[in-house]
Amino acid sequence: MTVTPGESLRALRERKPLIHQITNYVVMNETANATLALGALPVMAHATEEVEEMAAAAGALVLNIGTLSKHWIAAMLLAGKAANAAGAPVVLDPVGAGATRLRTETAQRILAEVDVAVVRGNAAEVATLAGRTAEIRGVESMEAGGAELAQAAGSELGCVVSVTGPVDHVSDGVRTLAVSNGDALLATVSGTGCMSTAVTGSFLAVRADAPLEGAAEALVAFGVAGEDAAGEAKGPGTFHTALYDALYGLRPDTLDARAKVEEL
Amino acid sequence: MTVTPGESLRALRERKPLIHQITNYVVMNETANATLALGALPVMAHATEEVEEMAAAAGALVLNIGTLSKHWIAAMLLAGKAANAAGAPVVLDPVGAGATRLRTETAQRILAEVDVAVVRGNAAEVATLAGRTAEIRGVESMEAGGAELAQAAGSELGCVVSVTGPVDHVSDGVRTLAVSNGDALLATVSGTGCMSTAVTGSFLAVRADAPLEGAAEALVAFGVAGEDAAGEAKGPGTFHTALYDALYGLRPDTLDARAKVEEL
Amino acid sequence: MTVTPGESLRALRERKPLIHQITNYVVMNETANATLALGALPVMAHATEEVEEMAAAAGALVLNIGTLSKHWIAAMLLAGKAANAAGAPVVLDPVGAGATRLRTETAQRILAEVDVAVVRGNAAEVATLAGRTAEIRGVESMEAGGAELAQAAGSELGCVVSVTGPVDHVSDGVRTLAVSNGDALLATVSGTGCMSTAVTGSFLAVRADAPLEGAAEALVAFGVAGEDAAGEAKGPGTFHTALYDALYGLRPDTLDARAKVEEL
Repeated sequence: MTVTPGESLRALRERKPLIHQITNYVVMNETANATLALGALPVMAHATEEVEEMAAAAGALVLNIGTLSKHWIAAMLLAGKAANAAGAPVVLDPVGAGATRLRTETAQRILAEVDVAVVRGNAAEVATLAGRTAEIRGVESMEAGGAELAQAAGSELGCVVSVTGPVDHVSDGVRTLAVSNGDALLATVSGTGCMSTAVTGSFLAVRADAPLEGAAEALVAFGVAGEDAAGEAKGPGTFHTALYDALYGLRPDTLDARAKVEEL
Repeated sequence: MTVTPGESLRALRERKPLIHQITNYVVMNETANATLALGALPVMAHATEEVEEMAAAAGALVLNIGTLSKHWIAAMLLAGKAANAAGAPVVLDPVGAGATRLRTETAQRILAEVDVAVVRGNAAEVATLAGRTAEIRGVESMEAGGAELAQAAGSELGCVVSVTGPVDHVSDGVRTLAVSNGDALLATVSGTGCMSTAVTGSFLAVRADAPLEGAAEALVAFGVAGEDAAGEAKGPGTFHTALYDALYGLRPDTLDARAKVEEL
Repeated sequence: MTVTPGESLRALRERKPLIHQITNYVVMNETANATLALGALPVMAHATEEVEEMAAAAGALVLNIGTLSKHWIAAMLLAGKAANAAGAPVVLDPVGAGATRLRTETAQRILAEVDVAVVRGNAAEVATLAGRTAEIRGVESMEAGGAELAQAAGSELGCVVSVTGPVDHVSDGVRTLAVSNGDALLATVSGTGCMSTAVTGSFLAVRADAPLEGAAEALVAFGVAGEDAAGEAKGPGTFHTALYDALYGLRPDTLDARAKVEEL
């Protein structure tokens, strides 16, 4: 295991990769600001007329299905293929997969037509994509994340899968890492899952050759920022605000020492 | 009058109802976070392909016309009918009714085709829907809310109507309640009206049998949170942040004592 | 030079002009709240069925191409022409011009078909519209703003051009003003450029007869707010929150003295 979040964060801040995000309306500002605070450059573009051009110029592409509609699905597929052709890693956040047929089928279609490097979801969403039944209650729904689920999904989907929860599990189907950084306040703010996906895309832009490690490093960085923000917070609002300060204040030289990562 | 906001809040936090929101782009993150901080589970979905499925699974449906377009109107009607069929209460926020013909007519059409439990708007919007003339200057426009207006609109529209302002008035056309909780800083943040509608939907999910009381309880809870947030604020930005902390920190055991509700 | 930001801010707060904004999904809440905190009334509307009616009622129209699609382009053109017919100033933010052909061509088309009073962009965007080559890396991309660029673009485009950066430059092609207010933290929050465009629209609503001065005054006000917010901030998140407090707290009686404006 060579999980080196500090080194990756340093590389990210030096290269400032452009992270093209086709994401949901609810979190666009939040994922843009998380990306920028971390040190990468966010750009949002969803028109079918421009997504291929934008994706081809990007260091990574993030697809998030949180508020779908027909034109957006078409844009995600076009952008995904353009990113693949350009060699930019694609990260998928299957928000609400399992909650409606449209979401489940769209996530499946993206996985079938686009070469996805990392899927980042909660346990219910990942279980749905891995062909298991799960109790779904909206996008905030969360079960305890499971190492076994991440491993099975990684194997089934043929990519890296991050199942986030109280403890995050990241697996490529063979190796599985557990990341214990984070804070319970992360679950009190809507969109922190989507932010962790944007951070995953940002790390993948400098870790395209090691998606398992990059995905785990992203969750370490986001989790450490969550820990720092919790120290400043009186509740979800002040936590949310402090989270951007904390992402901006992450220090490459201390990040490795603060990482709570274990290979299972 | 049996306005028991504490008991309803306790029930809401135990049941964690899913609140399906088809709302405007400006406030999606804000209403999602207000809903979650309060203790319910927000979900946003607007595609005609999935809204019926989502609304049927929800504890309440919130329709907000703040940034309309053709497909969204179709989705609101489909979702409204599905919520009706499933027995989930529907709350309508007629943002900007009176400001353009599209908004006035869309609000009227929803009221005609969907069984709406509660309309939550400012005085100008409600006056428009009740067939009265009103001076409209954008969505932030506000006149002093009036008991008489709420009563007349409740009677005219055949549902509960909440007219919010410095004092809020809630009426079903027969009984009228005045809620005096709140703080002037609420008017300095865009989207607090929309948040109060989302909170109304959250309370209705556990108070479907008593929409007059549920709507008033929601405004008590949101108003008390506003009072608490004002104590932490230096202006609209810090107030906005503190509002989520305050919603999260609302205590069921003290909420009844803090309620300023009067039956007129 | 008669740059009098204090007097304009006082007029703005007295008249509370309605500022119609057709802007991108990422910043809608942020520009609405910046507009409201400043003292004007924001309204967002993008449906082709209502934009002409809304624009005709507004004190200014802000067009921002940050997340385009076909229907929104049509709406921008309709709204722009309606604002022109009603005599309301139009401000254009060409977000990402140069990054994709769709954005460049849309900005050019708006400039060709609508009488734009002020273009507010970063150096790369403005350079693109002025027919110069520029290195573009996403919407956060920024080069050092240049007096010469603003002057050339103002002359080429036949309107006022604001090029924002560490120092802002505003020119109508003949006269050029440099505004040195602001803080480096503004570049760490996504959407502050879009906010400065909304503030520009708000000032133009009371300064339609003097767009060069109005555009510079807006950047003074926004920059001073940035300076005040920086004093409260620990990073991008707390800065962002404090920025709304600072806009709300701007004092007309001290604003002229704090202005750092120079005619070149």
